[in-house]
Amino acid sequence: MKHIAESTVRRLSLYLRFLEDYRRQGLETISSGDLASLGGTTSAQVRKDLSFFGSFGTRGLGYSVSALSKRIREILGLEREWRVIIVGAGKIGAALAQYEGFGYRGFKIVGVYDVDQARIGQSLDGVIVKDQQELDGDLKSLKADIVLIAVPPEAAQPLVDRVTKAGIRGVLNFAPAPLHAPAGVTLRSVDMALELEILSYALAAKA
Amino acid sequence: MKHIAESTVRRLSLYLRFLEDYRRQGLETISSGDLASLGGTTSAQVRKDLSFFGSFGTRGLGYSVSALSKRIREILGLEREWRVIIVGAGKIGAALAQYEGFGYRGFKIVGVYDVDQARIGQSLDGVIVKDQQELDGDLKSLKADIVLIAVPPEAAQPLVDRVTKAGIRGVLNFAPAPLHAPAGVTLRSVDMALELEILSYALAAKA
Repeated sequence: MKHIAESTVRRLSLYLRFLEDYRRQGLETISSGDLASLGGTTSAQVRKDLSFFGSFGTRGLGYSVSALSKRIREILGLEREWRVIIVGAGKIGAALAQYEGFGYRGFKIVGVYDVDQARIGQSLDGVIVKDQQELDGDLKSLKADIVLIAVPPEAAQPLVDRVTKAGIRGVLNFAPAPLHAPAGVTLRSVDMALELEILSYALAAKA
Repeated sequence: MKHIAESTVRRLSLYLRFLEDYRRQGLETISSGDLASLGGTTSAQVRKDLSFFGSFGTRGLGYSVSALSKRIREILGLEREWRVIIVGAGKIGAALAQYEGFGYRGFKIVGVYDVDQARIGQSLDGVIVKDQQELDGDLKSLKADIVLIAVPPEAAQPLVDRVTKAGIRGVLNFAPAPLHAPAGVTLRSVDMALELEILSYALAAKA
């Protein structure tokens, strides 16, 4: 399949949410105009995004909600279950472990790890926090696909090295540290303080 | 001041972290090479980023850690305190309220609000969750600058409309919904499930 730009993947992910809303409401078709206005874009952009993957629309009738949902789920790799391990059970890690949005999308939290004895043994929505010493063995036995990193910044790069060496190919990092991953690994970072700093810059520049 | 690209703002924010690490270690100067290797970029890029704001480096000696930190803090608008209100005290909102990274950067959480009686009155690191009915008055009396949105997706747009009407010019959204803000308002979104979906797409496309 042709590589899709990240901006397109983002829009597909949004369209999927609207399609699921429509399905819950019992609606069978959706127009490109509806998808566009919900997603804050244009009908032309929606048609362009969707034509990329084949033909779904019927002129005058719009898109089939079920067929289009299914196709987008396939494209985004959401037709299967992704097994996710969280390392770090502090405030961010615990919030992630209990975030309903993940399970709904097929991201199943199969393990949460920490080095702090006070956290080990705690239950986070039914997942018991385990000792990080067990991580290497569990990455394989639990068949983990993705690791979420929620450890202090100085612990983050050694952790990336460790889990990628164990075969992990997808990492989502929440530690405020610039990380490097070997070729073939997809590493993304969410940095909440950085988001606030970009906001602060924008506000200060306007003032 | 000239507008700075977001990618540059991100790098400046990273440089500032390294400068603060150096200062804690008692080091007085840092070379562009050190900043580059810490930040995963090139010396030429560092020099280009920094020359944008005036001259800080001395050939052969590097940059003064204290002067450069101060200048970057000024540029990013971090020399002042930003007063932040969080709306939504669910898992994400509560984690944000207790996130140490914010206070350290001059983002002071001055209020947390929810509509759920079970959450109102709870203490999150010393900030008591208040009834969302008090939000409009408090935005002004607490002199809030920034609102973090951690409410269910369907409640997010009405909330943006409400707080921007009350004069808020900076919004950081954590609800999985596409939002629109009036001109002059900086609105950014962090969507954790979306980040995982982009990862899922990348992994599925490779498989």
